[in-house]
Amino acid sequence: MTPPTTGLPAENTTDNNDHLVQSDDPEHPANLIPSLCAKFWTLGWVTGTGGGASIRDDDLVYLAPSGVQKELMKPSDIYVLSLAAQAQSLSRRQRVYLRSPPVYKPSQCTPLFLAAFTKRNAGCCIHTHSHWAVLVTLILEQQGSKEFRINNIEQIKGFGKGFQKSGNLGYHDTLVIPVIENTAHEEDLTEFLEEAMDKYPDTYAVLVRRHGVYVWGDNVHKAKTQCESLDYLFQLAVEMKQLGLPWITDIEPTIPTRKD
Amino acid sequence: MTPPTTGLPAENTTDNNDHLVQSDDPEHPANLIPSLCAKFWTLGWVTGTGGGASIRDDDLVYLAPSGVQKELMKPSDIYVLSLAAQAQSLSRRQRVYLRSPPVYKPSQCTPLFLAAFTKRNAGCCIHTHSHWAVLVTLILEQQGSKEFRINNIEQIKGFGKGFQKSGNLGYHDTLVIPVIENTAHEEDLTEFLEEAMDKYPDTYAVLVRRHGVYVWGDNVHKAKTQCESLDYLFQLAVEMKQLGLPWITDIEPTIPTRKD
Amino acid sequence: MTPPTTGLPAENTTDNNDHLVQSDDPEHPANLIPSLCAKFWTLGWVTGTGGGASIRDDDLVYLAPSGVQKELMKPSDIYVLSLAAQAQSLSRRQRVYLRSPPVYKPSQCTPLFLAAFTKRNAGCCIHTHSHWAVLVTLILEQQGSKEFRINNIEQIKGFGKGFQKSGNLGYHDTLVIPVIENTAHEEDLTEFLEEAMDKYPDTYAVLVRRHGVYVWGDNVHKAKTQCESLDYLFQLAVEMKQLGLPWITDIEPTIPTRKD
Amino acid sequence: MTPPTTGLPAENTTDNNDHLVQSDDPEHPANLIPSLCAKFWTLGWVTGTGGGASIRDDDLVYLAPSGVQKELMKPSDIYVLSLAAQAQSLSRRQRVYLRSPPVYKPSQCTPLFLAAFTKRNAGCCIHTHSHWAVLVTLILEQQGSKEFRINNIEQIKGFGKGFQKSGNLGYHDTLVIPVIENTAHEEDLTEFLEEAMDKYPDTYAVLVRRHGVYVWGDNVHKAKTQCESLDYLFQLAVEMKQLGLPWITDIEPTIPTRKD
Repeated sequence: MTPPTTGLPAENTTDNNDHLVQSDDPEHPANLIPSLCAKFWTLGWVTGTGGGASIRDDDLVYLAPSGVQKELMKPSDIYVLSLAAQAQSLSRRQRVYLRSPPVYKPSQCTPLFLAAFTKRNAGCCIHTHSHWAVLVTLILEQQGSKEFRINNIEQIKGFGKGFQKSGNLGYHDTLVIPVIENTAHEEDLTEFLEEAMDKYPDTYAVLVRRHGVYVWGDNVHKAKTQCESLDYLFQLAVEMKQLGLPWITDIEPTIPTRKD
Repeated sequence: MTPPTTGLPAENTTDNNDHLVQSDDPEHPANLIPSLCAKFWTLGWVTGTGGGASIRDDDLVYLAPSGVQKELMKPSDIYVLSLAAQAQSLSRRQRVYLRSPPVYKPSQCTPLFLAAFTKRNAGCCIHTHSHWAVLVTLILEQQGSKEFRINNIEQIKGFGKGFQKSGNLGYHDTLVIPVIENTAHEEDLTEFLEEAMDKYPDTYAVLVRRHGVYVWGDNVHKAKTQCESLDYLFQLAVEMKQLGLPWITDIEPTIPTRKD
Repeated sequence: MTPPTTGLPAENTTDNNDHLVQSDDPEHPANLIPSLCAKFWTLGWVTGTGGGASIRDDDLVYLAPSGVQKELMKPSDIYVLSLAAQAQSLSRRQRVYLRSPPVYKPSQCTPLFLAAFTKRNAGCCIHTHSHWAVLVTLILEQQGSKEFRINNIEQIKGFGKGFQKSGNLGYHDTLVIPVIENTAHEEDLTEFLEEAMDKYPDTYAVLVRRHGVYVWGDNVHKAKTQCESLDYLFQLAVEMKQLGLPWITDIEPTIPTRKD
Repeated sequence: MTPPTTGLPAENTTDNNDHLVQSDDPEHPANLIPSLCAKFWTLGWVTGTGGGASIRDDDLVYLAPSGVQKELMKPSDIYVLSLAAQAQSLSRRQRVYLRSPPVYKPSQCTPLFLAAFTKRNAGCCIHTHSHWAVLVTLILEQQGSKEFRINNIEQIKGFGKGFQKSGNLGYHDTLVIPVIENTAHEEDLTEFLEEAMDKYPDTYAVLVRRHGVYVWGDNVHKAKTQCESLDYLFQLAVEMKQLGLPWITDIEPTIPTRKD
């Protein structure tokens, strides 16, 4: 393992830095990722080891390993990586872990989580295989579309206006989520995810065709509530489709008359 | 903060009245709102910080804050407001809180909850973003309708006959829930909610198009069970629509023959 | 209250026989009814105080009260009634309770539960408002039918062959559940339920149109597993209807060739 | 009971070998089967005593009994059988149990679980009555098909390439699950299950028409995550069918351009 560059005491680097994932604080990322993933499992977002979540705390990135049952994850399963050390690495594909679990392999989602952290300064990124997300991408595929668009639904207010913008979307705003095509290897999605981030500078999520969705936020709270709101909208959209109701409508705003 | 007018000892007003949300009794409103909201989260009613609940205990109104994850709420997050003090305020939009949480902002649902408390003397009001409620309003929108109507379903008996009336609706009665159009700002819904309450003096709920539903009751028990019964009927109604079954039918009453 | 005829010590009758609902055994009916109902609430069977369950232990019948939130029920909420004393009562509608909870009213389901206990010697009877059950009765209503019939589904094996018969239905057998029309007052269902029991001597369940289902069994285990199996079949039947698949088919049995 | 041939101390064989199901380790098969089945019950996989799971630890096979409520199972309910002793038995249908629970009967699923253990060296086999699985077999029946086929869905990667092959299926691979016809007696399915295993040497699952699915894996982790992934795909497939979307598509692979 390449020596870390984060200024941690040298003696820790020889013992795998296990202290990085040991804390009594339930809000510590190494505790929070397992408890979040257990909750996501009950929502059907991370079935069969699919999906995952990553949290960034300043320079440190906490990551779930590959192939773990998400509702059974433990703090000791967590990888920790330094963003700064990673940036200095010669190769994007060579990851530099400060701390690694004894038995697992790194997740193929890692470079996609890193994209949210480096390009958007996100504090948390969630990846789900929610079947509502997959169904939305399949419905859009039939329409030859690479964008999910919905407006005039209250839950749209659950999303921020965009990167470095303050405030949230309004009820009448159109929420637009880009769809990228899936690749055979999850790591290969990275360039397309980054491309979508460049093309949609205000989006907090990218759908992956026939695969799921990546959602991020400035912190865990925002990433989780945006991911919940989006899954709600995907479910609603599929049910609207089944009932023959359009996702985009032209609705006259209702103006309040009372001045007080 | 404006000094409260409820006759609480003056020394408490200087320390934010935190005692108002501190109790060992699980039935205390400051404990009950978080436990109810955690339950509602599992039902999909308050996804992504949407929705909420408020309880009135005599003059005191307990309110969840804005933007909190509903399944993680704590008693210390709760706002407390005096109805009497509020009534004396010059402006409807200026709220007078006896107790405020340190980090949150008041919920935009507050004036809507207050409408149920002041106009109907309700003891509890629940606001959900249930997607069944939203789908019902979308189906009605397609029909150009501003009323949800259903009859001849047993669960209709779960609703009281109306404000200050005793007894519940019967199996053959038609449950009518008005639908108001959503506004860009949730507070602006208040006048339309109050208008619907005036027009439908016996209703215990108002649907908000593309948004959700407000349901109240004389106490927590009645608000919650009416909200559950209504969500059950909304789900049933959507499924009936998918199966081509009508919500309103003309059914011959079945008369018992036995006299004993 | 009429003095009980069960041979309980007289001194107990003066103190409401609270000992009848006090036990440390989780399998005691007064503990089991609340824990079962809490489980049924998570299944959507007893939403908004609808539905319920009753257990018979020899002569004693344990009953949930009317209007209680089923997931919050406590042993002290339970009514206890003597079947023998009830049989001696002059009127069917006059119930003789050995023990009553302090604040609730008896459930209107009581005479329907009693029908299962007296006519079928059942040990437990469950009443759900499951929306799958209601949807099945609505689909059948459109077809002018008073019977739910399904065959060639493995889960049918979850049902006994019938009252005082040993063994269960087979895979190729047709499960037949009668449907009775709902009445304005739940107690008035009793004569129609009993009529259906007479006409379908082997059934363990009766559907109530636009209302739900009553399911019983020789003991709690059998009532619960038959109720679960039936709800599974109702859900499957609704989904089959949505997919255009018939409930009754003529399938050639697959014969094993191996003799060992 | 035939004396066991596993080299266990003789004195244990006289006391029903209860030590085989007594362990403080939550990962011990006798503890793991009940906790897994309780989880499966919440997923709707083992409703009404249907379905089950078995774990093999070297020569010892741990089995749930027949007719038990799966969410209430206890370690003391578990059967233990020796594969070696079983192989020496004259008849397939005569099972040789090292340890039996006092009140239950062996499950009819036993020979089907044994097929996975003996023919595929599986470490765990799960049988569900998931209604998604049943609906998939019904849709295929209408099409006259004996194979479930789906491709170009990310979750397909949740399956191993096949028996004694390393690595998992890819995104563009077609997952093929054979369907066998149901028999009147579950034990009689064995020869057809084994036949399907022979015909589809790489499959980790066999669908049973109008009944459910058997899924296995090299160990508990793999069996469970393959079963979850498959149930996810069955649900997706039913929803795709409802939306008119095909299960098999011809999709151009998306090729990454970045070399780093």
